Amino acid sequence: MTDTPPADSRPARIGILTVSDRASRGEYEDRGGPAIIDYLGEVLSSAYEPVARIVPDEQPLVEQALRELADSEGCCLVITTGGTGPSPRDITPEATEAVADKLMPGFGELMRKVSLEKVATAILSRQTAAIRGGCLIVNLPGQPRAICECLDAVFPAIPYCIDLIGGPYLTTNEDRLVVFRPKKK
Amino acid sequence: MTDTPPADSRPARIGILTVSDRASRGEYEDRGGPAIIDYLGEVLSSAYEPVARIVPDEQPLVEQALRELADSEGCCLVITTGGTGPSPRDITPEATEAVADKLMPGFGELMRKVSLEKVATAILSRQTAAIRGGCLIVNLPGQPRAICECLDAVFPAIPYCIDLIGGPYLTTNEDRLVVFRPKKK
Amino acid sequence: MTDTPPADSRPARIGILTVSDRASRGEYEDRGGPAIIDYLGEVLSSAYEPVARIVPDEQPLVEQALRELADSEGCCLVITTGGTGPSPRDITPEATEAVADKLMPGFGELMRKVSLEKVATAILSRQTAAIRGGCLIVNLPGQPRAICECLDAVFPAIPYCIDLIGGPYLTTNEDRLVVFRPKKK
Repeated sequence: MTDTPPADSRPARIGILTVSDRASRGEYEDRGGPAIIDYLGEVLSSAYEPVARIVPDEQPLVEQALRELADSEGCCLVITTGGTGPSPRDITPEATEAVADKLMPGFGELMRKVSLEKVATAILSRQTAAIRGGCLIVNLPGQPRAICECLDAVFPAIPYCIDLIGGPYLTTNEDRLVVFRPKKK
Repeated sequence: MTDTPPADSRPARIGILTVSDRASRGEYEDRGGPAIIDYLGEVLSSAYEPVARIVPDEQPLVEQALRELADSEGCCLVITTGGTGPSPRDITPEATEAVADKLMPGFGELMRKVSLEKVATAILSRQTAAIRGGCLIVNLPGQPRAICECLDAVFPAIPYCIDLIGGPYLTTNEDRLVVFRPKKK
Repeated sequence: MTDTPPADSRPARIGILTVSDRASRGEYEDRGGPAIIDYLGEVLSSAYEPVARIVPDEQPLVEQALRELADSEGCCLVITTGGTGPSPRDITPEATEAVADKLMPGFGELMRKVSLEKVATAILSRQTAAIRGGCLIVNLPGQPRAICECLDAVFPAIPYCIDLIGGPYLTTNEDRLVVFRPKKK
């Protein structure tokens, strides 16, 4: 079975939002954002354009970045990294919920489940996902090793989710990651 | 171990609410509602009366139907089908939360978990459950095949839940589905 | 690998809040609170001081007790027992959310998952967890047997959570329960 992208296949714009006080001040090299970009490069076979941003752990700034990436930049998918723990400065899930039209609880449940197979502290991650207009926002943890494991778990459902909210038709390198789309009725 | 229903066993009223633009306009044959009615007929051994409704994917209409089924029709259980995905018109979970006295997160978690064993896109389902007065509301997906698999997962807990909110004593055909009730203290 | 507590190791204060109409009126012996105290005595190796309270299933009183234990009593951890079901008087999760700075959905998900291996009605438990200031609040069910099983599931993540919110350094008897802390960077 081959996925044939529709004729109109402009590159999908995908936002990568690093939420980190230290990375935003340049005191610390952002490793989460690049890990996500590497992942997309490895997995996606359809054309896409990454739109990367770094913001500190301030809820109004995270909300503003999410709104801009979804609304002005036209991203169909925004993947955040960082700010999902229980610490006082961790506010990425709250910012995501604040800009959401719809919450997608299944993403956080599944990511915690797969991370829990590795570390008991996976339950401390409060990561969630949400729809804003034509954009799916997915929170990932900050640690590069957890990023790949979480994306491997949820990415198979992402292209169909983007179909359902009217976005571009994403395809993957099927020897690396198989996505699921129900058969047309 | 036999379940002995109390002497007062008027038929339990069970609402079946199909949420679908196309089915409500008659453009599409409702298959979700009938699948739920078939399931109840197969599983329940106590007397019950189905109260079926079809509404479009409009949040105020879904809320109104849920209120009427719970409050005026006296349903102890309302099972919805449809409207739980990420699409712009999918608003069944929001309507359910809007009329809820209490949210029951364990239902959605378990239904997504069992559906995920079949399809990666199960995490896109936002289905939930809630208590409104003496009524348990449970959201199911729209696809008939997913309805049976979700109900098989959560139905074993439903009769005891209805006991706890003061409803009628439901029993099942135990060779088909065993329900769980803790032993009396 | 040995956990070395920091030099300043005042006993950690841990709140145990029994939420029960009958226990609060003395009509019923509280068994949940003592089960939690027994558990802590068995598991913790660092110094701690339990602060036990019993309140009826009244949301304002549960909220007030949670605020006092977190704010005035200086508890780094408050464990509640009771009031997490679907019954009209069960309001512990609502009270917990009302006083929360942050919700911790991973705790409830994992506790329902482990309880579900024992009883189908585990999905009826609405227990959650939350952060309020420097305090982690965790809801447990009322039944003593479920308390141990839920704490065994989530306790491995609790000491690190308390580290992250600025609390005392808890250690456990590692032959009874191993806690997880990521290696220092």
